[in-house]
Amino acid sequence: MSVLVDGGGGWHGVRMRSLLLSRRDLDFLLNDWLQVEKLTSRPRFADHDSDTFSAVLDLAEEVATEHFAPHRKLSDASEPEFDGERVHLPAEVGDALRVLAGTGMIGAAMDGSVGGMQLPQVVAQACFLWLHAANVGTAAYPFLTVANANLLLAHGSPEQVDTWVRPMLEGRFTGTMCLSEPQAGSSLSDVTTRAEPRPDNTYRITGTKMWISGGDHELSENIVHLVLARIPGSPPGVKGISLFVVPRFLVGPDGALGERNDVVLAGLNHKMGYRGTVNTLLNFGEGRYTPGGEAGAVGYLVGEPNQGLAQMFHMMNEARVGVGGGATALGYAGYLHALDYARTRPQGRPAGAKDPSAPQVPLVAHADVKRMLLASKSYVEGALALVLYCARLLDEERTADDAADRARAHLLLEVLTPVAKSWPSQWCLAANDLAIQIHGGYGYTREYDVEQLYRDNRLNAIHEGTHGIQAIDLLGRKVVMQGGAGLTLLAETIRATTARAVDADGTAAELAAALDAAVTRIVGVTATLWAAGDPEVSLANASVYLEAVGHVVVGWMWLEQLLAAGDRPGDLYDGKRAAARFYLRHELPRTGPWLDLLASVDRTTVDMKDEWF
Amino acid sequence: MSVLVDGGGGWHGVRMRSLLLSRRDLDFLLNDWLQVEKLTSRPRFADHDSDTFSAVLDLAEEVATEHFAPHRKLSDASEPEFDGERVHLPAEVGDALRVLAGTGMIGAAMDGSVGGMQLPQVVAQACFLWLHAANVGTAAYPFLTVANANLLLAHGSPEQVDTWVRPMLEGRFTGTMCLSEPQAGSSLSDVTTRAEPRPDNTYRITGTKMWISGGDHELSENIVHLVLARIPGSPPGVKGISLFVVPRFLVGPDGALGERNDVVLAGLNHKMGYRGTVNTLLNFGEGRYTPGGEAGAVGYLVGEPNQGLAQMFHMMNEARVGVGGGATALGYAGYLHALDYARTRPQGRPAGAKDPSAPQVPLVAHADVKRMLLASKSYVEGALALVLYCARLLDEERTADDAADRARAHLLLEVLTPVAKSWPSQWCLAANDLAIQIHGGYGYTREYDVEQLYRDNRLNAIHEGTHGIQAIDLLGRKVVMQGGAGLTLLAETIRATTARAVDADGTAAELAAALDAAVTRIVGVTATLWAAGDPEVSLANASVYLEAVGHVVVGWMWLEQLLAAGDRPGDLYDGKRAAARFYLRHELPRTGPWLDLLASVDRTTVDMKDEWF
Repeated sequence: MSVLVDGGGGWHGVRMRSLLLSRRDLDFLLNDWLQVEKLTSRPRFADHDSDTFSAVLDLAEEVATEHFAPHRKLSDASEPEFDGERVHLPAEVGDALRVLAGTGMIGAAMDGSVGGMQLPQVVAQACFLWLHAANVGTAAYPFLTVANANLLLAHGSPEQVDTWVRPMLEGRFTGTMCLSEPQAGSSLSDVTTRAEPRPDNTYRITGTKMWISGGDHELSENIVHLVLARIPGSPPGVKGISLFVVPRFLVGPDGALGERNDVVLAGLNHKMGYRGTVNTLLNFGEGRYTPGGEAGAVGYLVGEPNQGLAQMFHMMNEARVGVGGGATALGYAGYLHALDYARTRPQGRPAGAKDPSAPQVPLVAHADVKRMLLASKSYVEGALALVLYCARLLDEERTADDAADRARAHLLLEVLTPVAKSWPSQWCLAANDLAIQIHGGYGYTREYDVEQLYRDNRLNAIHEGTHGIQAIDLLGRKVVMQGGAGLTLLAETIRATTARAVDADGTAAELAAALDAAVTRIVGVTATLWAAGDPEVSLANASVYLEAVGHVVVGWMWLEQLLAAGDRPGDLYDGKRAAARFYLRHELPRTGPWLDLLASVDRTTVDMKDEWF
Repeated sequence: MSVLVDGGGGWHGVRMRSLLLSRRDLDFLLNDWLQVEKLTSRPRFADHDSDTFSAVLDLAEEVATEHFAPHRKLSDASEPEFDGERVHLPAEVGDALRVLAGTGMIGAAMDGSVGGMQLPQVVAQACFLWLHAANVGTAAYPFLTVANANLLLAHGSPEQVDTWVRPMLEGRFTGTMCLSEPQAGSSLSDVTTRAEPRPDNTYRITGTKMWISGGDHELSENIVHLVLARIPGSPPGVKGISLFVVPRFLVGPDGALGERNDVVLAGLNHKMGYRGTVNTLLNFGEGRYTPGGEAGAVGYLVGEPNQGLAQMFHMMNEARVGVGGGATALGYAGYLHALDYARTRPQGRPAGAKDPSAPQVPLVAHADVKRMLLASKSYVEGALALVLYCARLLDEERTADDAADRARAHLLLEVLTPVAKSWPSQWCLAANDLAIQIHGGYGYTREYDVEQLYRDNRLNAIHEGTHGIQAIDLLGRKVVMQGGAGLTLLAETIRATTARAVDADGTAAELAAALDAAVTRIVGVTATLWAAGDPEVSLANASVYLEAVGHVVVGWMWLEQLLAAGDRPGDLYDGKRAAARFYLRHELPRTGPWLDLLASVDRTTVDMKDEWF
C-alpha cells in the first residue's frame, strides 16, 4: 500500500490526493472557517503571512509522506528490543527525526527567542497532524519532546530553558513525561517516587515510573525526563507532588554531556499498537550509576515545591487536545485508505441488480459502504474541526488583544478539552474500525494498513487520562467550576452559531434547531444531576454525559462547517453538506437516549454489588 | 495471566471460577431456562440424561483450560510460517487437537452411526464455546472440520461419508471450506474456479481460493477441502455453482492415503488476530502435481450439479450461529478477565472521597468501572442466551415431535440467524474493547490477555458473511420471505414472552412494555421501508435495521432470563436482575433513534455521490 502520492510536480505543484489527510479540508477549515490569516495582525505572529502558513503545511506534508509514512509498517513489525545494553530501533526512526529537526518544526509554536518558529498553535497543530497520520510511533518522540519543552518554557528557570529546551528544539535531546507508577496509573495522588534535597539545591530521585514513552533509546544525545516526585515532608495526595528535570546524562555548564545519571531501563512494554514508540518501565536511583559518587538519580526542581500537578495541569489542555489531534489523524488516514479501497475494489452488484454476468461495481457503489464512509467522514472531519477549533482557542487564550477575550477563550477551552481529547479517541477509532470493515477480509490482514491504524489509535482513549477520567473532569469539574460559568459559556457559544442559521436552508436550520434543543437539555440535565446531592450518584454516568456533550459539540462543529461552506458549489462543499446531513440524521439523535438516562439520575451502576457480577 | 483455575479438587470437585466462561451461567441457561434435560425424552437423545450433558460440559471445560488456553499467547506470537516446503505451527496446537479428538467431541452433535456422540446441538454448542473462549486460533480447526463434516453428512453419498467424514471425526483428517476467491469475497456469484468433468465421474478443479483457514498444515494426515466451483456450461451467477470434495491426498478404496492432489499453497495471510489459524491462498490445479498423470486437482461432486450454494446455505444457519458463538465466547472471556482485574487491582478512591492517605480501593468500586462491567455482562450474557437459544432451535428444527413445531423452529431460526451471527460479533467485541479500557494501560499490552481477545474477535464481523451481508439477508430476505411470515413469527414469539411478564415486578414489566412497543415499531418500519418500492432505498440502512432488531432481540433474551430467574435469592439471580435493568435503561433505548431513522426512509447514503467524499 503506497502512501507516497507525490503527483510528480513536487510538493508545491499539482498533488494527488494524500491518503493521510486532506489538505483541501485543512485549507477549508483553517482559511475559510477559522480565518487563521487574521492572526498575522497580532504582534506575536506579525512576521508571518498566509504564505508562510501554507509553506509550513506543505513542508509538514512532505516530511510526513516522505520520511514518516514509509517506515510505519516497519516500525510496527520491528518493535523496540532491549539486548540488556541498549534499545534497538529501526534506523529509519532516527533518520526521520533528524529530517524533522532540520525543519525547525519541533519548535513550531514556540518563541523565536528560544529557537522556535512562533507560529500560531492552530497551524502547528495542523503540522503535527500530518506526522501523526503518517506514523504515530515515530511522531510520539517529538510530540512528547514538545510537551516537555512547553512545560519547561512555562515553569523552568532561564538556565533550565537554555540547558534543556534549546537542545530539544534542535533535535539533539528528546523529552519524556514521567507521571505514572506501577501502582498509580490514573491515580496520581498515589505517586511515591521520592526526591531528597541536597545542599547544592539538587535532589536525588528514587522510584519507579511506568508507561514512559521514549524513556530509553539512542535516537538523541540525551533524554530529558520530567518526573513527578515527593519531597519528604510534603503533604499527602496531589498537593505534595513536585516536578523535576532528571536527565539521562548530566550536562555541564558549557552544555557538554557529562556523567550518566542513575535512570535505568527496567523493562519494555509490548503493546497492541504504537509499537514504534519505545515504552518503558524506568528505575530512578536503583544504584546502577552513582553520579557524583552518590546514590539516587540527580534531579532539578522545576519552579516551586509541591506545584507539580498544577504545573502539569497548566499544560494539560494543550497535551490533551494534542492527543485528540493524534486520534483524529489516525482516523482520518483510515478513512482515506478505506475510501481509496472502496473506489478501486470491484465487488458485487447494487441491491436489486439481477444480472449476475454484469460486471462487478466498485465497493463505493453499495449503499452500506457509502454509509460507513459517510459515518467515517462525519467523524474524522468533525473531529478535525474540533481539534483545530481548540488549537485556535489556545491562540486566542494567549494572544487575543482583549483580556476578556483571553479569559473567555481559556474558559471555553477548559470545558472543551475533555471532549477534544475523548471524542476523537472514541469516534475516530470507530472510523478505523469501519475502515477495516470496508476492506473486508483484506482489512483484517497486516498486508494492508488499516488494522495497524486501528491498533495505534486504540491507545488514545487510555493515555493522558482515560475516558472515565475525562468524564469526571467534565461533569465533576469543568461544568460546575465558577458557578457553572464554563457550561454557560459553551451554551452561549453554540447558540451564537445556531442563531446564525436562522435564515439557512434545510439542513442548517434543522441542525440548528436540534442543537438548540440539545443544549437546553444538557444544561437542565447538568443541574438535575448535581441536585441529587451525592457525588457518587451525580458522577455515576459521567461517561454517558461526556459522550452526549461530545456528540452535541461535534454537531455544532458540523453546523459551523455548513455555515462556512454556505451555498458554494463544488464537491468539497457538497461533501460537507452531505456529511452534515448524515450527522444530523444518523448521529445527533443518539444523544436523546443518553440525555434521557442522565435526566433519570439512573442508579443502576451505583447499586450494583461486586458479588453480583 | 493464568487461565488455569483448577481449584485443586479436580474438574468434578470444587472449582474456582474460570476466566473463560461461567459454568454457573451456562447451567442456568441450559437447565433453568432452556431445560435441555427434556430433550432426553426424544428418541434421538434417549441414551443421554442430565448427567451425561453435565459430564461432557465438564470435559469441554477441562480440555479448554488444560490443553487449549495455555498456548493461546504462544500461537498469537508464533504465527504459522511457510518455509517453501511446509507450514510450521507450534507443536501445542497438534497436541491439543489430538486430545480433543480423543474425547470424541468433534462429532458431539453427529449421529452415533458415523461415530458421533449424538448430543443435542445446544449442548454441543456449549462445549465448543469453551474451546473458543480458550483459544480461538486452535479451535478453528475442529470448528471448520465440523462444518465440513456436517455438509457431507447432509449432502454427500454414503461412500463420501465413510471416506471423508469418519476420519474427520476421529481427528485423522481436518476439513476446510473453500468459497471465496481473490476477486470474489462477499460476492459468491463471481466465483470462477472451474470443474471439468472426467469420464470416471470425477472432476478436475482449477482456480484460486482465498481466505482458506486451515488450508495447509501438517496437523492431520489429510485435509478435506470443500470447494465451490463451476462446471462448464452451468448458468452464470450463484445458480451455476457446484460443491466438490478436493482432498490434499487422494484416498484409496481401502482408506489408505494415496497420491498428492494438486492443491498448492500460494501464500499465507498475516492477520490482526486469529493468528494461530493458518489462513491461506490456495491454488487448485496449478500443475505442481499431476495426480493420475493428469492436470487439475481431483474433485468429487457432492450431490447434484449447480446445487453448491443451496447446499452451503443449508448449513449456513448452523455455521453462522457458530460464528456468533465464537464471538460470544471471546467477549465472555474478556469480560471475566476484566472482572478479575477490576477486583484485584487497587486504583484511586471513590468519587467524593477526600482523604488522599486512605488506601486505594479496587477498580470495581468505581461507578464507571461498574458501568463498563455491567455493559459487558449485559452483552456477553445476552449473546450467550441468544446463541444457545438458536442452537436449541436447531434441535427443535430437527427433533421436535410435531412437524409444525419443526417448521416453526426452522422459520424462527432463519430470521434469527443474521442477528445471532452479527449481534455478538458487534457487542461482544464491544465487551472486549471495554475489557481493554478497564485494564487501562496494562490492557493495551500483550503481557495481558485482553488485547489479543479483541484482535481475535475482530474477525467475526467479517467472515461467514460481513455485517452488511447479514443486514441485507435480514431485511432483504428473511423478514419478507413467505409474505413476512418470519417477522410475524418473531413478533409473536417475543410477545409470548412479554405476555408472561404481566404480573412481574418492576424491571420485567418495564422491559416487557418496552419490547412490545419496539416490536410494534419494527413491524411498522419494515412495512414502511418496503413500501418505498426501490430496493436500493429500502436496503440503504439495512445495517441500522439489523442493529435495531438485534438490540430488541437481545432485550427479549434478557426478559427471558429475568423470568427464568424469577424472584429467587442469590448472587447469580441478583446479577441477572441487575444486568437486565442495565440493558433496559442503558441499551434498549438506543433503538429509538435507529427506528426513527428507518421510519424516515432516509436517503442520505443513497443520495451521496462518490465525488463528494
